[in-house]
Amino acid sequence: MRLSRYFLPILKETPKEAEIVSHRLMLRAGMMRQQSAGIYSWLPLGLKVLDKVGRIVREEQNRSGAIEILMPTIQSADLWRESGRYDDYGKEMLRITDRHEREMLFGPTNEEMITDIFRSYVRSYRDLPRNLYHIQWKFRDEVRPRFGVMRGREFLMKDAYSFDVDQEGARRAYNRMFVAYLRTFERLGLKAIPMKADSGPIGGDMTHEFIVLASTGESAVFLDRELLETPVPGADVDFESDLSPIVADWTAKYAATEEMHDEAAFAELPANRQVTRAASRSATSSISAPSIPSRWARRSPAPTASSARCTWAPTASACRASSRP
Amino acid sequence: MRLSRYFLPILKETPKEAEIVSHRLMLRAGMMRQQSAGIYSWLPLGLKVLDKVGRIVREEQNRSGAIEILMPTIQSADLWRESGRYDDYGKEMLRITDRHEREMLFGPTNEEMITDIFRSYVRSYRDLPRNLYHIQWKFRDEVRPRFGVMRGREFLMKDAYSFDVDQEGARRAYNRMFVAYLRTFERLGLKAIPMKADSGPIGGDMTHEFIVLASTGESAVFLDRELLETPVPGADVDFESDLSPIVADWTAKYAATEEMHDEAAFAELPANRQVTRAASRSATSSISAPSIPSRWARRSPAPTASSARCTWAPTASACRASSRP
Repeated sequence: MRLSRYFLPILKETPKEAEIVSHRLMLRAGMMRQQSAGIYSWLPLGLKVLDKVGRIVREEQNRSGAIEILMPTIQSADLWRESGRYDDYGKEMLRITDRHEREMLFGPTNEEMITDIFRSYVRSYRDLPRNLYHIQWKFRDEVRPRFGVMRGREFLMKDAYSFDVDQEGARRAYNRMFVAYLRTFERLGLKAIPMKADSGPIGGDMTHEFIVLASTGESAVFLDRELLETPVPGADVDFESDLSPIVADWTAKYAATEEMHDEAAFAELPANRQVTRAASRSATSSISAPSIPSRWARRSPAPTASSARCTWAPTASACRASSRP
Repeated sequence: MRLSRYFLPILKETPKEAEIVSHRLMLRAGMMRQQSAGIYSWLPLGLKVLDKVGRIVREEQNRSGAIEILMPTIQSADLWRESGRYDDYGKEMLRITDRHEREMLFGPTNEEMITDIFRSYVRSYRDLPRNLYHIQWKFRDEVRPRFGVMRGREFLMKDAYSFDVDQEGARRAYNRMFVAYLRTFERLGLKAIPMKADSGPIGGDMTHEFIVLASTGESAVFLDRELLETPVPGADVDFESDLSPIVADWTAKYAATEEMHDEAAFAELPANRQVTRAASRSATSSISAPSIPSRWARRSPAPTASSARCTWAPTASACRASSRP
């Protein structure tokens, strides 16, 4: 298509409302346009980029053995009451009442719905493990959306959920997601360092945020210089093999955000390996390996009535991997 | 991927709630799953089909010269107040209040938003014509959603909107969409017949519904047998050329739904050309060529202050083509 027939509404002036350079450049290049606070239209050039990012994410998820599905944006409040998170979630959840006065919500995440889908299907331990992911619009009603599409209210998120036979299986699923994330960021041309993080409402003892180093980043991270040279697994990595050495290689070395920073531990590194870098916290991706809260497991009317036939309910773990572009 | 590792939750029993065969088969084949009334998850096999349909739709839209963008699902109520349709739309519109008490809604369609985008960009008649489309989830809160994904509340819709210099240009844009639709249905393996239709809230004097003939269809249509043999333009059709002979060929012959049926006109056809067939009205696609309501044009703060420089506001037409899969 000729440029003269394309739709490329570039801006000549630098928009005042944009605080960070990526936001300014995306507006100037006619990639997107704000419709409401934290809600954007993707114009043709921006959509091409978004689609390309999505394609890379899909290829790496599929390579790791995850299976794509697509859950709807609108969910029933009842599902969230069953898990006990409906009242906990607070004002970030966009709550909706439909014409029949049923309480609905625009999904901020999908743990409840995926578990509802999976429990209606699983019949035996032979149906495990499975890792299901989807790429769908989410809504989180943040008080102060900012940084353009980096921290919008309506945003496209890839979230994957694994169901495993036991804790060891969940750990293997976690490692596969870990490697898939390393590869995804590498292909996107970003230097992302996995750092231990707080799991937040997801729970669990193992959570990493993949933090992108960027000179324009608004916060500081502290890391061992060797992490900058640690190789990312190639396209030939075998996801059936034991990936724990790769994960150990990336997680044994020091790397921390400001909140998690331990000055004493950092000081133990040789001086020439102590690196402080700017990083973009607005675009973090995290994976966590929680056990499903026992109250959810207990209350789930799993169709597999015999717990002897199915070890899923008491031991299932979910690996949630989310990436906010 | 091995079938034993795939996620294919087939049903052995025929689900009672499914009234039509496509709904029953999609459930049994594990293609989708209902989450709430009229709201579905697409399971891996169903998502593959949905993606393939989307790919064909995109290819034919692009071939016709339309440009893809992506507008958000959540819209501001203010935009709809400006066009005067906020109160008109009734209970089908899912209305939402955010944490700052701002009135929002889940878009049932995008005339308002696309016009808002376009008016902020258009500077001159040289920026015309443009046809922008997107494929995005819509929500229409129907009283009685039915037929599975054929008539859901949350559904994926392709909608295109053309902006033209004058009525004649709008007609040419209409013809391009008409041919793109013929080709799209042909590639999907469906026999779709364009029939004159009521334009509904879109307005305008020219609207066609593309009605799919299907032995399982729930309503009857009446048509000239010659339409069944009218050739669909090939992939080499030149969208820059005058397409009106093709459109005339398809629209001159008799074809009507039950509501629009004219028994006398039908009777004038030779008996062997009078065909009555079952058709699926649940999955109709329509294109219409309305003028933008004058109140919208008047109230639009178009950035092109001088109407001499830009003939857009008073004469713009929108071609809306929607397809509910």
